[in-house]
Amino acid sequence: MDNNNISHSHCRIAVDAMGGDYAPDNAVLGAMQAYVQSRDFDLLLVGRKEAIYNVATLNNLSVNDDMIVHTDEVIEMGDSPTGSLKKKPNSSIVVGAKLVKEGKADGFVSAGNTGAMSVSSVFNIGRIKGVARPTLTAPFPNEKEGYTFISDVGAFVDSKPSHLLGYAILSSIFIEEIYGIKNPKIGLLNVGEEKGKGYPLTLETSELLGNSGLNYIGYIEGKDIFKGTADLVVCDGFIGNILLKFAESIVPFLKTKIKHYASGGFFKKIKAGIAAGPLRESLKNTNYELQGGLPLLGLNGISIIGHGSSTPLAIKNMVLRAKEMHEKNLIKKIEESFTRYSLPKIN
Amino acid sequence: MDNNNISHSHCRIAVDAMGGDYAPDNAVLGAMQAYVQSRDFDLLLVGRKEAIYNVATLNNLSVNDDMIVHTDEVIEMGDSPTGSLKKKPNSSIVVGAKLVKEGKADGFVSAGNTGAMSVSSVFNIGRIKGVARPTLTAPFPNEKEGYTFISDVGAFVDSKPSHLLGYAILSSIFIEEIYGIKNPKIGLLNVGEEKGKGYPLTLETSELLGNSGLNYIGYIEGKDIFKGTADLVVCDGFIGNILLKFAESIVPFLKTKIKHYASGGFFKKIKAGIAAGPLRESLKNTNYELQGGLPLLGLNGISIIGHGSSTPLAIKNMVLRAKEMHEKNLIKKIEESFTRYSLPKIN
Repeated sequence: MDNNNISHSHCRIAVDAMGGDYAPDNAVLGAMQAYVQSRDFDLLLVGRKEAIYNVATLNNLSVNDDMIVHTDEVIEMGDSPTGSLKKKPNSSIVVGAKLVKEGKADGFVSAGNTGAMSVSSVFNIGRIKGVARPTLTAPFPNEKEGYTFISDVGAFVDSKPSHLLGYAILSSIFIEEIYGIKNPKIGLLNVGEEKGKGYPLTLETSELLGNSGLNYIGYIEGKDIFKGTADLVVCDGFIGNILLKFAESIVPFLKTKIKHYASGGFFKKIKAGIAAGPLRESLKNTNYELQGGLPLLGLNGISIIGHGSSTPLAIKNMVLRAKEMHEKNLIKKIEESFTRYSLPKIN
Repeated sequence: MDNNNISHSHCRIAVDAMGGDYAPDNAVLGAMQAYVQSRDFDLLLVGRKEAIYNVATLNNLSVNDDMIVHTDEVIEMGDSPTGSLKKKPNSSIVVGAKLVKEGKADGFVSAGNTGAMSVSSVFNIGRIKGVARPTLTAPFPNEKEGYTFISDVGAFVDSKPSHLLGYAILSSIFIEEIYGIKNPKIGLLNVGEEKGKGYPLTLETSELLGNSGLNYIGYIEGKDIFKGTADLVVCDGFIGNILLKFAESIVPFLKTKIKHYASGGFFKKIKAGIAAGPLRESLKNTNYELQGGLPLLGLNGISIIGHGSSTPLAIKNMVLRAKEMHEKNLIKKIEESFTRYSLPKIN
């Protein structure tokens, strides 16, 4: 890649061409779909040059050398996150994050190894001043035809109250800027609504949130997520990640159940076929492809982590989301806003 | 109640007539349905005599004085668990648990205040020797047309590894005896399958489970619950309770979504109507009424806690489950089995 060829007036999004279960195919296809649709940004495909050209040739896509940042190592889905970063410094996940760090890209998206992508982003892009822990924020569909966001869904476990307050601040700004929800209502996930419930840390977190200046509405329970009681639900990454993976399994579970029902005879098969339409439309908000990926918030640059099984549509939406975050100047806004709220010192 | 009138050859199940959002109606109706269906046990309705007779008269049920244990206090759904037990010693939740303790009943079921019922059961019935913490075990439907059980779903938060091992032992015996699953596969809920993932306590728990003699299959993730990868999923009560409440909200969420779809026009309304059948049948295992309530395992007697919104059918099934647990001699079996597994001392 020749840096002189990059127009700095343009937004530049780097895509991990080697990331995901169906890489490089889905990654290259999705990235090119975003590029062809929008055109007003520079696309950087990070990965093995010959593999990228193979996909391009097979699918008749106009990829040229200026769009490729060649890397010869690949972090596999099963690799240990920290170990692989050291062992494979010339992998797409390391090189992509470094492009953001060095100002050569305005955002990096990857559907590769989630752990490696998190660690590489935090280590290479770095955190915004005052942010102890970045957070992964995920949209859950809700009954109000919108989303309930959950933060953290797996960047970190064993969060302290001040970390949870940090997640709330970071995600609030994201939701407000990207989803247009002004002053989002924030709930703290707990096993009951009464004051004495939960872990000792829960009460402490609740007090921090209550004094933060954020729109904190108190404890909410598991049943409130789909109801949309809060716009943002704050919790430790351990439970957030388990909830996310459980929620993602609802649609496959329903499909298996309906298929089983359909095997019960001719009329059941017909009914199940008709049921597919309403179900699909009712559950369209649960389709992660529409949101593309999950932003890792709190970093000094844009990093979006996608599902391992990301389709080209999911990759495309990740790229467009990264571009939107850049155009809305989200990192700068997070930086400014992070000082607005009273954040205690992390011990 | 005259104790001389109780036939001790019979099983005696006490029901909290004042427990639940629709008490005494649903509690008395459900208990009487179980009684009329089976007849081979003694039913004890614990609560306000006149209220119980009112429901009986209105519904033409043959209730007599021998079936009533009068109590004049009621613990409300919003009362503080520990506070209310002290303040209301003559409440149905306290008296019912004491009946079990004193051998006057072989089991107690209540759809009342979950916290008060837990604390009253632990305090009044007492724990089996060696059991540091009892556990609430809940069945989740799975793709294999059976159930994945989760333990603990909310009896206690902040569990130590040895507590989690205890939950695994208690729930294994319950699943084996009541659901006929021999040597149930046990998974430990975590954010990934790799060894280094999760909390420091997770690894320690995994080692305990691995050395316990139980059928431990290792870490499982949120996506494995509906898949039925394990028969029993062990986790802290904090996450278990949030998962249970989240899972219970799936069907109402789908109903709202389908209703919204149906409002989109005539044909959509027809399609949504047809979809209701397959959906209802596909999700019938998610109906908590069929399982009635959740057993509090590890106590020196049978205690089953029901959903606040329990229907008569749910109460009926709770009563029949308590009877089954008694007939299968579950408490004795738990007592014997609890010494079979290598359980470390609780610190």
